Amino acid sequence: MRPGMTDPRELDKQYVFHPFSMAHVHEQSGALMMARSADGCWITDDSGKRHLDAMAGLWCVNVGYGRDRIADALADQARQLSYFHGFSSMATEPAATLAERVIAKAPEGFSKVFFGASGSDANDTQAKIVWYYNNARGKPEKKKIIARDRGYHGVTVMTAGLTGLPGLHAGFDLPLPMIRHVSAPHNVWTRLPEEDDAAFTARLAKELEDLILSEGPDTVGAFIAEPVMGAGGVIVPPEGYFAAIREVLDRYDVLLIADEVICGFGRLGTWFGTEALDMQPDLMSVAKGITSGYAPLSGVLVGDKVWRVISGEAPAKFGAFGHGYTYTAHPVMAAAALANLDIVEEENLVERAGEMGAYLNEALARAFADLPIVAETRGKGLMAAVEFARPTADGWQKFDSSLQVAPRIVRAALEDGVISRALPNSDAVSFSPPFTITPEEIDLAVSTVRKAAGVVHDALRAEDTPASQ
Amino acid sequence: MRPGMTDPRELDKQYVFHPFSMAHVHEQSGALMMARSADGCWITDDSGKRHLDAMAGLWCVNVGYGRDRIADALADQARQLSYFHGFSSMATEPAATLAERVIAKAPEGFSKVFFGASGSDANDTQAKIVWYYNNARGKPEKKKIIARDRGYHGVTVMTAGLTGLPGLHAGFDLPLPMIRHVSAPHNVWTRLPEEDDAAFTARLAKELEDLILSEGPDTVGAFIAEPVMGAGGVIVPPEGYFAAIREVLDRYDVLLIADEVICGFGRLGTWFGTEALDMQPDLMSVAKGITSGYAPLSGVLVGDKVWRVISGEAPAKFGAFGHGYTYTAHPVMAAAALANLDIVEEENLVERAGEMGAYLNEALARAFADLPIVAETRGKGLMAAVEFARPTADGWQKFDSSLQVAPRIVRAALEDGVISRALPNSDAVSFSPPFTITPEEIDLAVSTVRKAAGVVHDALRAEDTPASQ
Repeated sequence: MRPGMTDPRELDKQYVFHPFSMAHVHEQSGALMMARSADGCWITDDSGKRHLDAMAGLWCVNVGYGRDRIADALADQARQLSYFHGFSSMATEPAATLAERVIAKAPEGFSKVFFGASGSDANDTQAKIVWYYNNARGKPEKKKIIARDRGYHGVTVMTAGLTGLPGLHAGFDLPLPMIRHVSAPHNVWTRLPEEDDAAFTARLAKELEDLILSEGPDTVGAFIAEPVMGAGGVIVPPEGYFAAIREVLDRYDVLLIADEVICGFGRLGTWFGTEALDMQPDLMSVAKGITSGYAPLSGVLVGDKVWRVISGEAPAKFGAFGHGYTYTAHPVMAAAALANLDIVEEENLVERAGEMGAYLNEALARAFADLPIVAETRGKGLMAAVEFARPTADGWQKFDSSLQVAPRIVRAALEDGVISRALPNSDAVSFSPPFTITPEEIDLAVSTVRKAAGVVHDALRAEDTPASQ
Repeated sequence: MRPGMTDPRELDKQYVFHPFSMAHVHEQSGALMMARSADGCWITDDSGKRHLDAMAGLWCVNVGYGRDRIADALADQARQLSYFHGFSSMATEPAATLAERVIAKAPEGFSKVFFGASGSDANDTQAKIVWYYNNARGKPEKKKIIARDRGYHGVTVMTAGLTGLPGLHAGFDLPLPMIRHVSAPHNVWTRLPEEDDAAFTARLAKELEDLILSEGPDTVGAFIAEPVMGAGGVIVPPEGYFAAIREVLDRYDVLLIADEVICGFGRLGTWFGTEALDMQPDLMSVAKGITSGYAPLSGVLVGDKVWRVISGEAPAKFGAFGHGYTYTAHPVMAAAALANLDIVEEENLVERAGEMGAYLNEALARAFADLPIVAETRGKGLMAAVEFARPTADGWQKFDSSLQVAPRIVRAALEDGVISRALPNSDAVSFSPPFTITPEEIDLAVSTVRKAAGVVHDALRAEDTPASQ
C-alpha cells in the first residue's frame, strides 16, 4: 500500500473486489465512480457529469435519490436505538411496525414476516423454510426446489443455483443437487411460432408437471418464480400462466414461492407483482423496494398454511426455529423502510408506476419499431426491455455473445448520460427507473438508448456481419 | 388483522417471525421490547427499565450505543448519495475509502475486500471463492470445507452447515454434503485430563490431518475457524493451536479461512483475532465490529495467493466474477463503518478492549471460583464465558438440557437488569460487552450473573438433583 494515497478511484482499483466485474480489467481500468445525487432519477459522477439513472440503481431506488426524509429516519432511529436483535423473543418497535405495514399490503392469508438484509438471504431462508416445513410434516423426501431458466433469485450458494443464469454458476459448481429448472416463458426464445398464450401456457404447465412426475412428486417441495422476471430479461408470462402453474403445484402438494424482490412495493403498478399476475403464492420474498435501496433490508412473508406447521408441529420436533441473522429486524433499517413506505403512499407512487410504466412501454414500442435488430420490446409497469437479435427468414437468432451487442448499446447510452442495463443470455437492454420519473425523462432515456442502438446497428453492418436484412 | 391496533408489542406478536425463538411460545408471550439507548452499555425497554447490555447486542455494538456521530454519518451519506452499486465496475467513494482502511489494519498479504451485508453472506462468499479458486486452478475435486464442532459461521443453507451446532441443523437437512467437522478445542469437553497444551494441540492437529487423509487431500479445499469461537462457547484454543493447524493445511494445499466476524476490529485487544492467536489465514470474514452493528455490512478479505488466481487464470475460464449483492459496497453502510472506525481509533478502543478484557476475565475467575457447578471461566479480551456443569468424581458432566441451567441464570440476571447470553450445547453464559464498558459496569455485570447463578445452584439442590457435591 502506498501511504497517503487518497484518490478514491485509485483506492477502489487497488482494494475493492467488485461484484459481477472482470477482476483483471478492473485493476487496470478502474471504476466509474458515482459521487452524489441531485434528486429523482439523477446522479452525478466524480467528474461532475450527470446521469439519468433509468435503472434506479439495481431495480431498487423506487422513490428516487435525494430523499432527506429517509436520511432523517436513519439518523433519528440510530439516535433513539441504534441496534437490537430479534433472537430469543427480543424485539424493537420499528421492526414490529414495519411487519404490520407489510402484511397489510400483502395478499390475504399472509400473517408473518421474517426479516433479513438482502433478497439473496430472503430466498435462502425460503429454501430452509420449505425443508423445515416438510420435515415437520413428516415428508423428509419432499425437498427439491424447481426454479426457471433466467430466473434471478440471489447469489448465495443456495440461491445462485436457483438463479437460472449460467454466468452465476460458472466456476462455482452450482446449482446444488436438489435444484431443478424449467423453461422461462420467453416470447422470443421459448414460445413456438404458432403458439398463442393459451397454447404456450399449457405447454409450460405441462413441462412443469412432467418434471414433477419424473422426479417423483414426493421429492418436490417448492417452485420459485418472480412475477415478472427481472435480470433474466424482463420476461412477462403469457396470460393465465400462474393460474395454470398453481393448478399443477396444488395437484402435487408443492409450495409456490413468489420472488417479489424487484416487483414488490409497486414496480408493476400494484403493491405486489402477485396481484398483477394473478399469482397465489404460499411464501413471498421482498427486498429492494421496501427501502428503495437506502438500506439493506429484506423479508420473507409466510402464508398461513406454512405458518401453521412452523408454530404447530415444528417446535416439538426441532425446538426453537434455528435460523436468524444478527441484522434480522434491524431497527435502523426498519425505520428507513417505514419512511420509504410513507413516501410511496403519500405520493401515490404505486399508481404512478403503473401510469409511467404504460408510458414507458408505449414509448419503447414506438421508438424501436423500425430497427431491424429488435426482436421484441416488452415490459409491465416500470420494468421494460428491448430484445436485440439477428432477423432470419423464419424468426430470430441470437447474436454471437462476442459481438457484445447489448453491452455496446448500454455503454454508448452511458456515454450520453443515460444508465440502462445489458441483461445476460441474449441481448436485452432493460429499463427500471424510479417511480418519480417524468414523461420527459422517459422520452430522454428511450431516445438516448434508441440512438445508441442505431449506432451499434450501423456498426454491425459496417463490420460486415449479417446484422440486418 | 385488527384495524387500529398499534401497540408495538401486539404488532410484534402478531406479525413478526422471530429468529432463534419458539414460534408458538412467542405468539402467546410476546417479546421483551427494547425502546431506546442512553449510551455506552445501557439500553431501556418499553417499560422504562434500564438494562446493562453485557453482550453488546449480539457481540457487535463495540463502540457502545448512542453514538450520534454514526447517526450523522448515515444521514450525511444518505443525503449525498443514498445508493449506488458496485456491479460492472461501478463504484462509490465511501466503499473505496473503507476498503483501504480495512486492508491497512489487516495482516500482510491481504489486498482486496469484497463487501456484503452479513457475516453469513461473507462466509457463504468464502465457500464460493474456495470452489472458484480451485476450479480456476484445475482442481475440480478440491471442494470440501472442514469446520469445527461449535463453530458459528452463519445461517444460510451453506453457512448454517459450516456452523457446528445441532440447533442450526435440526429440521433443515444440514450440513450440505461437502462439509466436514472436527473437534472444538474445548477445555472441559474435549481436552483429556492428562493433556497439556502441547499434547492437546498435537491431538487436534492429528485429528484434522487424519480427516484430510481419509477424505483424500485432493478433495479438501479449505478449513474455516473463528480465532476465538463465539456462540459455540467462547472457546480459546490452546497455545500453538493455529500454528499446528496451519502446518497441516500447508502440507495438503488447503486454504485457511479466518472467521473474524466477532473477533475482528478489536474485541480481543488486537485489530484482528488472527494477530492475537497467531493465525495466518488466506481469507478473512468480517462483519459486526466493522459498523458496531449500527448498519449491516460485512467483508471478505482476500489474500494475495487467492487473488492472483481470481484475477489471473479465472476470468479467461469463467468471464466476469459472477457473484455480488445489490447491497455490496453500499455507500451509506460504508459511511457508517468509517465513522465507527474513527471512534475506535480516536478513543483507542482496541487497547481498551484488551485492558477491560483482562479486568473482566479476572473478575469472572474471582467471582465464580467458589461455585461448585462452575467447570471453567474462560475468555480473551472482551469475550468471556462461564461454563456450568455437574461435578463428578473424575471431572465434569453436562447438565441435562431440560434443566435449562444456563438459560435460567441468564433469565434471572435479565430480571436484575443485566443482559448476558446462554450458549448452546452445554451450559455456558457469555459476556461480550461494548469496549467502552467501565470496571464498575463489569463488576455489576459479573456480580449480577454470579448472584443469579447462586440462586439457580440453590434451586438445583432444592429440586433434589445432584447438582453439587
